[in-house]
Amino acid sequence: MTARPHHFPADKSSLAHAPTMVISNIWPALEGGRYAVKRIAGTPVTVWADLFRDGHGKLRAVVKWRKRGVSAWEESPMVHVGNDRWRGEFTVVELGEWEYTVEGWQDDFQTWRHEFERKAAALKPGESLQTESIEGAIILEESARLAEQGGHQAEAEVLRRASRAIYDAAPQDVAHTVDDSGLQALAARWTNRSLSTTAVPIYRVLVERERAGFSAWYEFFPRGAEGRADRHSTLRNCLERIRYAKGMGFNVIYFPPVHPIGTSHRKGKDNSLTCTADDVGSPWAIGSGEGGHYSIHPQLGTVADFEWLVREAKELGMEIAMDFAINCSPDHPYVQDHPDWFFQRPDGTIKYAENPPKKYQDIYPLNFHCKDWRNLWQEMVRIILFWADKGVKIFRVDNPHTKPVAFWEYLMSEVRLQHPDVIFLAEAFTRPRMMEMLAKIGFSQSYTYFTWRTHRQEIMEYVNELAHSDLREYFRGNFWPNTPDILAHPLVNGSPAVFMIRAALAATTMPNWGIYSGFEFCENDQHPDREEYRNNEKYELKERDWKRPGIRDFLTKLNHIRNTHGEFRHLSNLHFVHVDHDRLLAFVKASPHRQADLLVIINLDPAHLAEGTVNLPQESVPEPRDVPYRVRDLLTDDVYNWHGTANWVSLDPHSKPVHIFRIESSDQD
Amino acid sequence: MTARPHHFPADKSSLAHAPTMVISNIWPALEGGRYAVKRIAGTPVTVWADLFRDGHGKLRAVVKWRKRGVSAWEESPMVHVGNDRWRGEFTVVELGEWEYTVEGWQDDFQTWRHEFERKAAALKPGESLQTESIEGAIILEESARLAEQGGHQAEAEVLRRASRAIYDAAPQDVAHTVDDSGLQALAARWTNRSLSTTAVPIYRVLVERERAGFSAWYEFFPRGAEGRADRHSTLRNCLERIRYAKGMGFNVIYFPPVHPIGTSHRKGKDNSLTCTADDVGSPWAIGSGEGGHYSIHPQLGTVADFEWLVREAKELGMEIAMDFAINCSPDHPYVQDHPDWFFQRPDGTIKYAENPPKKYQDIYPLNFHCKDWRNLWQEMVRIILFWADKGVKIFRVDNPHTKPVAFWEYLMSEVRLQHPDVIFLAEAFTRPRMMEMLAKIGFSQSYTYFTWRTHRQEIMEYVNELAHSDLREYFRGNFWPNTPDILAHPLVNGSPAVFMIRAALAATTMPNWGIYSGFEFCENDQHPDREEYRNNEKYELKERDWKRPGIRDFLTKLNHIRNTHGEFRHLSNLHFVHVDHDRLLAFVKASPHRQADLLVIINLDPAHLAEGTVNLPQESVPEPRDVPYRVRDLLTDDVYNWHGTANWVSLDPHSKPVHIFRIESSDQD
Repeated sequence: MTARPHHFPADKSSLAHAPTMVISNIWPALEGGRYAVKRIAGTPVTVWADLFRDGHGKLRAVVKWRKRGVSAWEESPMVHVGNDRWRGEFTVVELGEWEYTVEGWQDDFQTWRHEFERKAAALKPGESLQTESIEGAIILEESARLAEQGGHQAEAEVLRRASRAIYDAAPQDVAHTVDDSGLQALAARWTNRSLSTTAVPIYRVLVERERAGFSAWYEFFPRGAEGRADRHSTLRNCLERIRYAKGMGFNVIYFPPVHPIGTSHRKGKDNSLTCTADDVGSPWAIGSGEGGHYSIHPQLGTVADFEWLVREAKELGMEIAMDFAINCSPDHPYVQDHPDWFFQRPDGTIKYAENPPKKYQDIYPLNFHCKDWRNLWQEMVRIILFWADKGVKIFRVDNPHTKPVAFWEYLMSEVRLQHPDVIFLAEAFTRPRMMEMLAKIGFSQSYTYFTWRTHRQEIMEYVNELAHSDLREYFRGNFWPNTPDILAHPLVNGSPAVFMIRAALAATTMPNWGIYSGFEFCENDQHPDREEYRNNEKYELKERDWKRPGIRDFLTKLNHIRNTHGEFRHLSNLHFVHVDHDRLLAFVKASPHRQADLLVIINLDPAHLAEGTVNLPQESVPEPRDVPYRVRDLLTDDVYNWHGTANWVSLDPHSKPVHIFRIESSDQD
Repeated sequence: MTARPHHFPADKSSLAHAPTMVISNIWPALEGGRYAVKRIAGTPVTVWADLFRDGHGKLRAVVKWRKRGVSAWEESPMVHVGNDRWRGEFTVVELGEWEYTVEGWQDDFQTWRHEFERKAAALKPGESLQTESIEGAIILEESARLAEQGGHQAEAEVLRRASRAIYDAAPQDVAHTVDDSGLQALAARWTNRSLSTTAVPIYRVLVERERAGFSAWYEFFPRGAEGRADRHSTLRNCLERIRYAKGMGFNVIYFPPVHPIGTSHRKGKDNSLTCTADDVGSPWAIGSGEGGHYSIHPQLGTVADFEWLVREAKELGMEIAMDFAINCSPDHPYVQDHPDWFFQRPDGTIKYAENPPKKYQDIYPLNFHCKDWRNLWQEMVRIILFWADKGVKIFRVDNPHTKPVAFWEYLMSEVRLQHPDVIFLAEAFTRPRMMEMLAKIGFSQSYTYFTWRTHRQEIMEYVNELAHSDLREYFRGNFWPNTPDILAHPLVNGSPAVFMIRAALAATTMPNWGIYSGFEFCENDQHPDREEYRNNEKYELKERDWKRPGIRDFLTKLNHIRNTHGEFRHLSNLHFVHVDHDRLLAFVKASPHRQADLLVIINLDPAHLAEGTVNLPQESVPEPRDVPYRVRDLLTDDVYNWHGTANWVSLDPHSKPVHIFRIESSDQD
């Protein structure tokens, strides 16, 4: 019976002093600090804590932060906001993982001063405060000693003089001496913190660059860059297409895998099991005699071509996101070099992927729990580092939920130690807890259920969850109306209105969004059995006339508005507002200090006019009741005169399915 | 730049295998497991966790528990309740601190079986499942090996036979062989868990005896046991008073401190600074030439007398709660033996307690952060153990919020290692965060704000917080309508109705409640300046005629109903119901399986009749609409015929301020 409770000074020998403060309920904290919250460099981290101790002492607290494993603690003061709750803030600009915690202590000088003043006020004739004065003098003398130790002689001298002044003074003179804000600041600076308490555990924040939190993605197959069914395009052909996407205001180009494509069991057109000599194969069946994840598919070019393209894109202000798909074709070099990394049958042959009755004989999954798992995991890190060294700083990770969560936590941490600017997007269309966990362990962005959310209530609930629940601390949704795998059902109708509506929903509710090419042309050729494209580009070269207008102008305006209005760079400033029509979705994006909020109104019905009264919150209305103000549609530059909180809107999907209003006071231009 | 993230297999050398499962959001857990939740011995601990992994494997999970530092893990299976959330349960009867955690793994046999069956169903002519059969055979062979290792030869043999049967069988025969629930249970029992994952940290639960969760306290001053102003009663005189309290249905007797009372600066009657030779002094000014916290005040008797009384009380089924007040009079032995344990002035004299302008010259506070703090803290533990060894198993702790929280955590842990049946009540009338924290670190029960809650809404909010927020996991309120320090303002009016109302509120809403003697006689002699008693018993002997009826019958009935209806032993079965009169408070105490819920209705207005319609929840109504049922008032045995959910009640405070109904179906007697 010698067990002792946790956390206690029980092995008292190890504690220089008894714990004094209680520090608890630190926020933000994910599962007690087990996981890091996320912030964009330069945006503040506000930290809350409950902090108190026994007695009536005056307390002080600081929030402390440091680069993980590198720098010494910095600190800034916390303020008491009431009911023993304290708040502090810090801002970091350097990318990487930072740690923070909270430290508190009793301010001996202020505690003494407060008590002294109360005693002095109640002093009766014949009573003395000599002893109390000496106590104050001793506290200041101690501060002077600490200032001296810290190399601040001048400050030490001020403190020492005050100490001496207090020593012999009459009570009313003591009060006068210590009622000096300069002295109080010095006493606070050089207070004795040897009895302070620091919260354990240490909390963490992953600081990423702005693109992690604000991005517009455009996906295309490099081999289709020229839009020809009769010719395989190369990486050199892609630059024009990147310029084209930049023209529409996108800033991330995402390529499906560019590695050699396997030939064994290669899939034919439309996912056919039979394959002709002409069939180009799925880029997700990686590895051939020409190499694996370190190589470029020969029909696309060379690693040098790829490096050239990454550089050229960068010149344009564009970034290329690489697909990290841990899928090996039977021809992948690993199959020869590391057969033990794969799942093996009892007869020693390697297992292909299966989801009975489906068989994927063109894919060998890796066994992340094989005996040699350490080397396998490290090899995956090496792949990412190889491309990061070549300038790729965004990875779209294919199906991360089919590999161990612990593996991704390891991989991303290792990569970020060398390249803290690398961004990871999780393509996990799976169950909510897995999606949340992948974000918790470090994915910068995540694909979402948006693709299937169409009704007002479900969109509002989902966006509210991302914007205002604990998810906002770590889960950044990236909204895609379509992907090569998903021709979402609303798009099947094919009208420009529905594509504009889906694009506007994604681009205005979320700071991160993206489309797969063809979306701008309202492509809607549906597979007969599934929510997919017929003759999927994954398995063939597609004819595509890139010069058609489609809804390119609309997308260009949408991205332009996003890029020129900082309100769209954040999510937590989004607040849905009431409209009395169930197909009209409306929300405010609050501007800093609410001086000119944005108001987005979207008609979710691509076929019918929707009209109704939209109710602004009072704080978004720039003028007193009865004074008109203007709302300017940033898409059309149309201006409307509004009054008060309730105003009429009318959205005809055939001409104008979306308003993006700037709310202007009447004297604004 | 060699820092590595937390929790990761980074020091991979230490991990036998890569982490496989994700286990998160374990509940109950206070601040990530930092603090223990509380349970009464024999009541279940239900544990929830999110638990999943990559892939489509069939998972299993167990909740595991063990006596802290003593026993090996026990375990029971968890079930998947949906959305990756699992639930398990365990019950412990042995008192003390227990640990629990969650372990999960992939069930290889069920994973194989599920996949095999899907493949068999899709099998085409000419295809074989030979390889798949062998995989299943190998899994069962491994289970057989584990069963053998575990010493279960017979089970090993069953598994081995099944393994052999599968090895050569045709697919349809394999399916038949494995479709045997006995075999599946064996395969589950002897599954290979070497790749399992166990959640860290380990969570904790403090298991206490029933009195910690269900108690009725009666406080009296032993020196007033005979109710004579002219004679100091002794411990020997107290037995009659204990019998008297038992007669009213109380089960805990709480004595203010029984230790020698100091004479230096002893307070006179009514807290006067001047004291005559007759004045008995405050029992909270502890310590004199006759001893300190280990001694009994000579006018009360001896330690032997005290032990006799504890034994006699126990014979009656009563327990004596001792007051643990860390207040030293200037005459306390510590002042001589350990002057360094006190706060000292610069001149070396010891500081008395002050809260300027108030001075408490009869009290020297201890300095829990003095240099010799380790010995001081241990000495406090020794005091508790001294009395616990003499049979005292309940301590009412005076003002715990004025001593370090870490000190209490230490003290209670140390005491419980030797006496896990000791119960601590925190007398901390202070700020909410401090009160919560004292409960978190181990106080069994806590005084509350109930004493000042009088309006319906504030009572409902407070009780709901205790019953249904996270507080229910660790904070057990003990509701006191009065204490020697507090003559709460509603009681000042002095009518029996208000005393009955306050008693009924405390006794029916909370499993733990108590009164300070005199309450049963509706004593209401108010101090002119404060919410206190005039001529407080803390400073003098009081005349009290214990034979008066007062509201003793009512209190007796109240405690009898509590003691004979298990519904009052728990709090989370309390649900407020709507009444359309704002002075009527009504709530259901749900019975097991809701077969005969209790319904309590209290008129909060001691002066006026209140009438209104009370709305029962449907699940409390025992009969279909239009079929009458009965409600029986357990206080009066009156029976009323009710219909449906809405029924009329009328409470006249002068005759009947409270209903405690049992809701009976019409065929019940």
